[in-house]
Amino acid sequence: MRIARFAVREGRSAREGGLAAGSVSFGVVEGDASQPQSLVVHALAGHPFGQPQPTGESFRLAEVRLLTPMLPSKIVAVGRNYAAHAAELGHDVPEVPLTFFKPSTAVIGPTESIAYPPFSSDVQYEAELAVVIGRMCREVPVSRVPEVILGYTCANDVTARDVQQREGQWARAKGFDTSCPLGPWIETDLDPADLAVTCTVNGELRQDGRTSQMVRSVAELVAHVSEAMTLLPGDVILTGTPAGVGPLAVGDEVAVHIEGIGTLANKVVARG
Amino acid sequence: MRIARFAVREGRSAREGGLAAGSVSFGVVEGDASQPQSLVVHALAGHPFGQPQPTGESFRLAEVRLLTPMLPSKIVAVGRNYAAHAAELGHDVPEVPLTFFKPSTAVIGPTESIAYPPFSSDVQYEAELAVVIGRMCREVPVSRVPEVILGYTCANDVTARDVQQREGQWARAKGFDTSCPLGPWIETDLDPADLAVTCTVNGELRQDGRTSQMVRSVAELVAHVSEAMTLLPGDVILTGTPAGVGPLAVGDEVAVHIEGIGTLANKVVARG
Repeated sequence: MRIARFAVREGRSAREGGLAAGSVSFGVVEGDASQPQSLVVHALAGHPFGQPQPTGESFRLAEVRLLTPMLPSKIVAVGRNYAAHAAELGHDVPEVPLTFFKPSTAVIGPTESIAYPPFSSDVQYEAELAVVIGRMCREVPVSRVPEVILGYTCANDVTARDVQQREGQWARAKGFDTSCPLGPWIETDLDPADLAVTCTVNGELRQDGRTSQMVRSVAELVAHVSEAMTLLPGDVILTGTPAGVGPLAVGDEVAVHIEGIGTLANKVVARG
Repeated sequence: MRIARFAVREGRSAREGGLAAGSVSFGVVEGDASQPQSLVVHALAGHPFGQPQPTGESFRLAEVRLLTPMLPSKIVAVGRNYAAHAAELGHDVPEVPLTFFKPSTAVIGPTESIAYPPFSSDVQYEAELAVVIGRMCREVPVSRVPEVILGYTCANDVTARDVQQREGQWARAKGFDTSCPLGPWIETDLDPADLAVTCTVNGELRQDGRTSQMVRSVAELVAHVSEAMTLLPGDVILTGTPAGVGPLAVGDEVAVHIEGIGTLANKVVARG
């Protein structure tokens, strides 16, 4: 099942008792993702945790604007979880995973733009598999991690590399507004063990990895983070980026594609 | 004005139209803080941003339980902002402030306990002045920072020092559950330039600094953080800790006192 969050576009005539233009809702996306025109979004009542309840109202993809599929209370990210990426930045794989936060104010959806922040001159893409938590949990053993996962989406851990290298901790370098694109939806039926993760910039392939190259698995990462802190429904864990990171420029379109999920594409604009 | 958040204790007979036992509300605290029995809490309607609206209902302090005065969407903290503290951990003052996040799940209030996490054997206190943001803002110039501040409270940036030293980024070391006590209330009428910040453990003085020893002022820190990211009403900026940090043990009571605000005292218990 693909769970999206969307706003109803202007121009669709409201159904009686249905969602008005501008309304925001969760929905289930059906159809062939390679044929976006074929996609249909079935609205859900309330939130998608537990047993999702369709309202019976459906939309063509063109009638809605996809939003970030989740508004997480926190995003916990992991650094240097692919050996080849750690090496390209001149680092060893850390003995213990590097964990850091991105704030909720950094999140944007699949139709929004990355705003290049004025305090950096080296903003880079980092394509990542994102894990969406489905249940409140803490101290989850590796074997039980699948029980607490709602599904997976694509993320771009956008990073001001110059700021990251200058400042010892990464709140500003990886936490600026728009530095966490998520989407296009949450795939709930997916084995994360060996998925292709790619990143293109203006259609050119820049990153081309597989989740099987992760130093620590999804289950190990969720267990490790939850050892310290409670995870809430909707919280997101980013699992690290493969080799091939590089710069973005205003005007670029960066696209993260993950096998079995889909494509998260965002334009880069100057901060307004 | 002192803004608190509280829950009504059982045993108080409900007034008609008033708050029932268990209800949570913001309130304004009046009276002499050195005489807790004298304190009265006047309930507010809704939130305390903008023009607080008293409901007319008041409580003696014994009739309520003080909660964290704010539920921040994010907490941005600053490392090594007092030279003597940087030196005691063997560091220079960083050229650019070290900024990191603590998650909302780490926040506890003044009547809750710090739960010693099993993955550390060196949990330490760090008394800090906390800035509470009152208005949504970004790219705030230093001169305009006072306009975006609601007030100030006491914080304890509880840190698993061994985990911090072992892991390069501090999400687990400074983000575990209960690692961010805040309170007892937000003082809105306060000049933060030169306040005594102390920490006691079981009544023994351990930290004894002044905010005038900060490397960067409150205004400089808020400007620096907001250069990167939007701050929302209720977000909290921690301003660093003075020298004298040290270990906590299960059974301790740690108290952060800040001149002009009050005392934030929390017991340390084993994680349940």
